[in-house]
Amino acid sequence: MTQFFNAKDAVVTEAVDGFLRSAGGRLARLDGYPHIKVVVRTDWDRSKVAIVSGGGSGHEPAHAGFVGQGMLTAAVCGDVFASPSVDAVLAAILNVTGKAGCLLIVKNYTGDRLNFGLAAERARAFGLTVNMVIVDDDVALPDLPRARGVAGTLFVHKIAGALAEAGEDLETVTAAARRVIASVVSIGMSLDTCTIPGSPKEDRIKSGYAELGLGIHGEAGVEQVVFTSARQAIAQVVERLAPHVKPGPQVALLNNLGGATHLEMSVLAEELARSSIADQVKWIVGPAAMMTSLDMQGFSLSLMPLTKEAERCLMAPVAPWAWPGVNPFGDFAVLPLPDGLTPIQPMPSAHAGRRNLIARCCNILIAAEADLNALDARTGDGDTGSTLATAARSLVKALDRLPLADLTQLYRAIGMELSQTMGGSSGVLLAIFFTAAGDASASGRDWIEALGAGLERVRQVGGAEPGDRTMIDALVPALEALPQGLGAAARAAREGADFTGTIRRAKAGRASYISEDRLRGINDPGAEAVALLFEKLSAGADLAQPAE
Amino acid sequence: MTQFFNAKDAVVTEAVDGFLRSAGGRLARLDGYPHIKVVVRTDWDRSKVAIVSGGGSGHEPAHAGFVGQGMLTAAVCGDVFASPSVDAVLAAILNVTGKAGCLLIVKNYTGDRLNFGLAAERARAFGLTVNMVIVDDDVALPDLPRARGVAGTLFVHKIAGALAEAGEDLETVTAAARRVIASVVSIGMSLDTCTIPGSPKEDRIKSGYAELGLGIHGEAGVEQVVFTSARQAIAQVVERLAPHVKPGPQVALLNNLGGATHLEMSVLAEELARSSIADQVKWIVGPAAMMTSLDMQGFSLSLMPLTKEAERCLMAPVAPWAWPGVNPFGDFAVLPLPDGLTPIQPMPSAHAGRRNLIARCCNILIAAEADLNALDARTGDGDTGSTLATAARSLVKALDRLPLADLTQLYRAIGMELSQTMGGSSGVLLAIFFTAAGDASASGRDWIEALGAGLERVRQVGGAEPGDRTMIDALVPALEALPQGLGAAARAAREGADFTGTIRRAKAGRASYISEDRLRGINDPGAEAVALLFEKLSAGADLAQPAE
Repeated sequence: MTQFFNAKDAVVTEAVDGFLRSAGGRLARLDGYPHIKVVVRTDWDRSKVAIVSGGGSGHEPAHAGFVGQGMLTAAVCGDVFASPSVDAVLAAILNVTGKAGCLLIVKNYTGDRLNFGLAAERARAFGLTVNMVIVDDDVALPDLPRARGVAGTLFVHKIAGALAEAGEDLETVTAAARRVIASVVSIGMSLDTCTIPGSPKEDRIKSGYAELGLGIHGEAGVEQVVFTSARQAIAQVVERLAPHVKPGPQVALLNNLGGATHLEMSVLAEELARSSIADQVKWIVGPAAMMTSLDMQGFSLSLMPLTKEAERCLMAPVAPWAWPGVNPFGDFAVLPLPDGLTPIQPMPSAHAGRRNLIARCCNILIAAEADLNALDARTGDGDTGSTLATAARSLVKALDRLPLADLTQLYRAIGMELSQTMGGSSGVLLAIFFTAAGDASASGRDWIEALGAGLERVRQVGGAEPGDRTMIDALVPALEALPQGLGAAARAAREGADFTGTIRRAKAGRASYISEDRLRGINDPGAEAVALLFEKLSAGADLAQPAE
Repeated sequence: MTQFFNAKDAVVTEAVDGFLRSAGGRLARLDGYPHIKVVVRTDWDRSKVAIVSGGGSGHEPAHAGFVGQGMLTAAVCGDVFASPSVDAVLAAILNVTGKAGCLLIVKNYTGDRLNFGLAAERARAFGLTVNMVIVDDDVALPDLPRARGVAGTLFVHKIAGALAEAGEDLETVTAAARRVIASVVSIGMSLDTCTIPGSPKEDRIKSGYAELGLGIHGEAGVEQVVFTSARQAIAQVVERLAPHVKPGPQVALLNNLGGATHLEMSVLAEELARSSIADQVKWIVGPAAMMTSLDMQGFSLSLMPLTKEAERCLMAPVAPWAWPGVNPFGDFAVLPLPDGLTPIQPMPSAHAGRRNLIARCCNILIAAEADLNALDARTGDGDTGSTLATAARSLVKALDRLPLADLTQLYRAIGMELSQTMGGSSGVLLAIFFTAAGDASASGRDWIEALGAGLERVRQVGGAEPGDRTMIDALVPALEALPQGLGAAARAAREGADFTGTIRRAKAGRASYISEDRLRGINDPGAEAVALLFEKLSAGADLAQPAE
């Protein structure tokens, strides 16, 4: 898979530099490339307890993204999914640690344990006070004596960071971190594996399946499950967490593993609110990408009991933007729609001729649905026919409530009807057309002039002119010819529609993004609809009678 | 492609609700589902100019994610990639607009223009003052009279939002928005298309190619180009922007189109700093996902001249977390490595026997590289052989500078050498082993006892015990047998290594995440390395002489 990198070996150093360039001077790094990749605060005077974390890269924004006032003092970045070396950790400790000492927050992977552990021993040989805590929040592997550290680590970063920032001593900060670690539980689910730079993507998870209990380094999950819905996904995750969750209020952390869309993450948040554990979840961090696994299309859910200390520490302000904040979770206000959306319905009235004309127009458009869709599909998204047919079907259903006897009210009512039932550009263009025609009719213009005024308004709002390859190209000549009769209007509309097939460059609508070659010889579907309408009408009745 | 949704039709409404549930009460929505999806501030009193934006969904966090003090007053959300209806826009305007009026910020797509345009007209009929601006920052299609609106829209949101928050009147806010629109330019590049919910993913971009000048609705780019590197990608994007960029300082907005990893985006930021336009880029927004195209693995770059007004407005604080802030772009501090990382090198000294023994150990491990890798690949990541061989090669190169004549110094020096040249768990374990052995030797223990002390320290830091399926299982019996000679040690190590093949559950290391079935009959590669080492040594020399 192609990725926005240069060389595989330079991914992490270039990424750290790019990150630092955009960090506004609050962060710096140590001069140890490529071996030592340590990000530190520039606004740090060693007067408080230093909080150092890190591990393999590929989990961004963790860990460098959380360096800053109120969270980490330094982040030690390994290569992708590889622990940083002892020297790198030691360099970080030596750089940031003063008399108040240093807390190392380490996820429970052998490499991290060893490298951070040895670095801590070496740092102690310099007379520094260094404590180390191991985060093991993953409940995916219940039989394993060494649970992995995953996104629950963020709770440890934030709470230890807040206490350190508040000036608490090392033992207090360490004890609080240990309490968080003892109480936080996490599990992840993913629909796909991740893409490790320079390696082909593993094709482990079949479409329609999800992996439950996976790790953040691309390790396989505990099991593959059939994926049916976001609701079921949250239910499965909650089911695994529930045995480990104590009674009482919880704070959730909903973590994007990297490749889930914002839409997906928000749907998952909604499902959390509908889940069996929803009543316990009082606060939420996210949904956001915090502890990722490169581009993995998955999420993890962490839960922690909501103590007074946790609440206060989680809410403390921090400098790092990557921390999404903590918010109450649950209900929100649904406000009543404003008055004015539902216009006063005009009194229905009868007019057999107009009723007949409208029905015929609608039936012509309904019959042309497939042909117009096919035409549109050649240059656009293939829905012009359906859009017009949907409008026509609604209008047919609305015939009984239309003020057919009053042309001004009728035009306005048709405009309102179309604006309420149609989506898409064509629907609104037609609504503008009829609404403006109604206004013109009210000011005394005859029925054809009124339609002309409607067309004028369509041109203003839509910005399309004749020659721009739109329905305007057929409507303008048709309305100009209409005083000479339906036959003349039909001929003019056809000429205009066919002209659109010779226009080499569309200036509006989706077709405007299409290359010239692909447009040649294809009529604009909106213009074609206008031509078809007038042609079929002129093949039938006398216009003057039904309309007036 | 499977996604974390329930039903296709419910994606946007469920996502908006999930988003609102996590927004901490600052946001609400109008009661118009499913047709009207409008997100509004709850802390809004209509006393200032209202800023309303929106469009199709699928661009999250735009637009709902930017509703809040200092940016948008309301967001009108359409279905995925579909404009919201006139009624939806009108509902938003009516809900938030007071005497100060309302500015609609609309991206230049026909549907959005029409729906927002008609809604503005209807709102004016209620006596409200409504202005509308159309954002057209995309330079991808230079011949097109209607450039699309893409991520540059964020500049308009932020600057108009800041002025409105500051109490400026509608005409002032509108004029500033128009100045931004006139000056901002954007272009996007992507390595893959996006996945529209409920539709199969279009396979348009071949691996190794990139699309330049694509739209945010999955529209094809202006051209496909061969992708070689992040550097070239930024160069191509800058080349397209450059003709439109005026001289003088600029602010850049580096937008993740949804599916690029944080690592990729940071590498792109670094390349921006190395690009031909770098000298002009004084501030940066991002890199961050702001105006996405679902899960598209791409980015866009927007540039805007840095006026005093822009600088002031971009820096104004805002409530929405999705706004990543604006930061100076460019250099950062690179701090010198702390003292203490480079230990004082012991004086080299000669000892032919020890030199010979170390060289033999190293050569044995180098020769075993492929076999140990193959063994490791069956249960782990297949690098045990390479890790050990790399260490061995370094140690061979270091022979001339080792204090061979002083056993205490020699152990310590080997530990330091290994910690500086190796990554991975095994490297650190060996470093701990030799460092601790040196300490024990210094306190008067003999050379075998010292190795035993090193092993004890490895067990403490690594947390592994005999029976945990690690190299401990071979090292412990080998060192216990060593006083009886090399042959005894080799037999004990072999027995220990073969025992690891019968252990059904690993408790440490990567193999601990592997199912029992896959472990059966496979020796732990670390233990196997220990056994091989002692076996090959015992097939050769007399140990007592070279070591002492």
